[in-house]
Amino acid sequence: MAKPSLPQGTRDFAADVVRKRTYILGAIKNIFERYGFEPLETPAMENLDTLMGKYGEEGDKLIFKILNNGINDPKNIEKSKAGFEKVLEGKSSSDLTERALKYDLTIPFARHVAMNHGKITFPYRRYQVQPVWRADRPQKGRYREFTQCDVDVVGSNALLNEVELCNVYHEVFIQLGLINYELKINSRKILTALATLCGGASKLIDITIAIDKLDKIGLDKVKEELLQRELNEAQISIIEKYLLITGTNEEKLEQITLLLAHIETGKKGIEEITYIYKQASNTNLQIDFTLARGLNYYTGIIFEAKAPAEVKMGSIGGGGRYDDLTGLFDVPGIPGVGISFGVDRIYDVLEELKLFPTEVQAGTTAIFFNMGEKESLFAFSMMQQLRGKGISCELYHEFSKIHKQFSYAEKKKIRYAIIIGSKEMEQNYCLVKDLNTGLQEVVLFEKLFDFFNK
Amino acid sequence: MAKPSLPQGTRDFAADVVRKRTYILGAIKNIFERYGFEPLETPAMENLDTLMGKYGEEGDKLIFKILNNGINDPKNIEKSKAGFEKVLEGKSSSDLTERALKYDLTIPFARHVAMNHGKITFPYRRYQVQPVWRADRPQKGRYREFTQCDVDVVGSNALLNEVELCNVYHEVFIQLGLINYELKINSRKILTALATLCGGASKLIDITIAIDKLDKIGLDKVKEELLQRELNEAQISIIEKYLLITGTNEEKLEQITLLLAHIETGKKGIEEITYIYKQASNTNLQIDFTLARGLNYYTGIIFEAKAPAEVKMGSIGGGGRYDDLTGLFDVPGIPGVGISFGVDRIYDVLEELKLFPTEVQAGTTAIFFNMGEKESLFAFSMMQQLRGKGISCELYHEFSKIHKQFSYAEKKKIRYAIIIGSKEMEQNYCLVKDLNTGLQEVVLFEKLFDFFNK
Repeated sequence: MAKPSLPQGTRDFAADVVRKRTYILGAIKNIFERYGFEPLETPAMENLDTLMGKYGEEGDKLIFKILNNGINDPKNIEKSKAGFEKVLEGKSSSDLTERALKYDLTIPFARHVAMNHGKITFPYRRYQVQPVWRADRPQKGRYREFTQCDVDVVGSNALLNEVELCNVYHEVFIQLGLINYELKINSRKILTALATLCGGASKLIDITIAIDKLDKIGLDKVKEELLQRELNEAQISIIEKYLLITGTNEEKLEQITLLLAHIETGKKGIEEITYIYKQASNTNLQIDFTLARGLNYYTGIIFEAKAPAEVKMGSIGGGGRYDDLTGLFDVPGIPGVGISFGVDRIYDVLEELKLFPTEVQAGTTAIFFNMGEKESLFAFSMMQQLRGKGISCELYHEFSKIHKQFSYAEKKKIRYAIIIGSKEMEQNYCLVKDLNTGLQEVVLFEKLFDFFNK
Repeated sequence: MAKPSLPQGTRDFAADVVRKRTYILGAIKNIFERYGFEPLETPAMENLDTLMGKYGEEGDKLIFKILNNGINDPKNIEKSKAGFEKVLEGKSSSDLTERALKYDLTIPFARHVAMNHGKITFPYRRYQVQPVWRADRPQKGRYREFTQCDVDVVGSNALLNEVELCNVYHEVFIQLGLINYELKINSRKILTALATLCGGASKLIDITIAIDKLDKIGLDKVKEELLQRELNEAQISIIEKYLLITGTNEEKLEQITLLLAHIETGKKGIEEITYIYKQASNTNLQIDFTLARGLNYYTGIIFEAKAPAEVKMGSIGGGGRYDDLTGLFDVPGIPGVGISFGVDRIYDVLEELKLFPTEVQAGTTAIFFNMGEKESLFAFSMMQQLRGKGISCELYHEFSKIHKQFSYAEKKKIRYAIIIGSKEMEQNYCLVKDLNTGLQEVVLFEKLFDFFNK
């Protein structure tokens, strides 16, 4: 058969990568739990009609659909034939596919809440760390299967939730050593007020789409785009003034107050952002009125976390407040706020900044060398005692040349080699060699556990 | 839109279930790591030709295939049309689907080893805990998405690997409290010797298929089946003698020696099983010559773990030695041995025997009640201090009636409620109510951490 390969855009994770990913996800989950969030897991598959129409036309195309079972089965050809023809006529695809792989964690979460809203205790504080699938064109840093990591509070309008999420970002990133990460916040209410000032709320989408590109294309091009989107010079000049607000958080709040506090929505937005800024114990928080975030379902505070400036990575997380999680599933009145962590990008940032602690990559602590049949059975029983006390160890599987055993230990990055030959067996000690330093010690059997437990 | 629902055979896991599953998987992974096994993760999707033809005709039908991206896209109708026709002609389905969801962990593991055999350090000790998908008819205890949990050593013929895997089973099940679980072992070599004695090795499959049903249909029906499978009375009488071997492990070994040790394969099998039985520190190990296991790729020792007899659950794990992991992918000469844990069944067994420790189900330790705006901001800062010290807690999101807050805490099974009103704020203490006992204590702010850390 053909050489085995992986589907485009997917990856195997060998031990070193799994361990580093587990380290990141462990740190994140630990903070989530400490903040009283509960885990939720939903299946990889959802019904197709749960997903379709939720991510825009482009998104729909990127959903991986699952072929109905039996569609390729010769016995079902007759049935399938009808199915295919229907598809070709463009009437229905349900004979071909009724299920799909989840595209994000938000819609499955909404589906879960809608299905169980009578049983769930609100506010529902949930976190979810699972893979999602997108039929995007694979490229560097973009995969077809990747992990999303979301945390949301739904069923509550309290701004303290936003404050908590600012603190969650802070604790996670500090824990991971990303001391200089940036947390940018803005409010869609402030953007709405800006739109009101510039031709009415209907201009909101045009304005946010243009502002969203500021980082990439610069102010002049944003102004050009606004012109193309039929804003006039006076309006664009207000937006320019808005985009040029700079200074400390306090200074920015002063300037935005002058510009937008006379509009009701603006006043509300400024109050909210001030409250969050004051209550959050997050020294990396920056109010940034140029933050827009493309997704139109955000209605209040929006967040974006960025990698430390020395790494060219950009966003490593984002989120915001939305009015209505489950309206699409006919359960209205469940507002919420949530953030997510870009796990793959955080991984790359920690790698680049060499922030993974060495102990994360440690596997087996010690290897017993195999010095013959009798010796290896003896080593085996010593090993079981160490394992019983929580020390991870293994025994080389067969009696072979010592350099082969050393080479195995080195390749597997095992730190200690334990050698028990017939002489050592008789005299109740072993040789323990530290493969990092090359130092060798004589250790009595009865002291072996203490040696590793020191 | 229609009421949201889950695809048949799939499940959402809410917090209590996730926590219990995490407890089981944590115990298993912990033992794996202690035994020097390394984690591996492979993608949910594999190329269709990696999976097809590996699980027999029935298995192929149960593989979930993924529709090629864009196949439903109007722009691709012309292209798709050709694809559909080809499928209908039965020539090729590759225009319709080229990827599928993984059906087990063994084939993706083999594919990974075949792709990376030049880089991997052998013996490769890997464990893998991931979901798999099967388009089986859903029924009680059988799901279309479920977790498999495999551990294998490949690239080694040493019997010590089998011994270690016996010990892994033992440590995991004892850790989980399944004191009376049973570990049955047999050897395909012994079964082969039996076949040799009864009409030749070609009868091996007939004999194992029949023996495999012994538990379900009983000895008489097995004999009937053997007759149908064209074994004669004399042969069936040998098999009956074989199946009636009973007694202690030592007694069984004596009887099997009389029956089969004169055949070379039988002698080898008996030696191996004796070695494993003697070296494994597993008091729950039972030699059971009626164990057959259906899968034909097993060539040496076979394992089956069973739930304690008081639970009607049967197998909770199984495995065995195979000669050739990657031959199907044109990389010959990689033998191995592996076992798996039936996570969903272990879950049901622990549930039935009430073996989940209560602390597994604990979420948030304490909730600060919301006694008004000023009080809640104060409580918030107290809460952040506790969280900073690793105590999981939350603050009720809004000022509302106290009974509503109690009800929320109870529903979420939060053990302690912390009440800080204006009087308490002034006098530097809080009321801590234990919702399990109903007892209320006055705790000074400076002693609050100690209260939870006691």
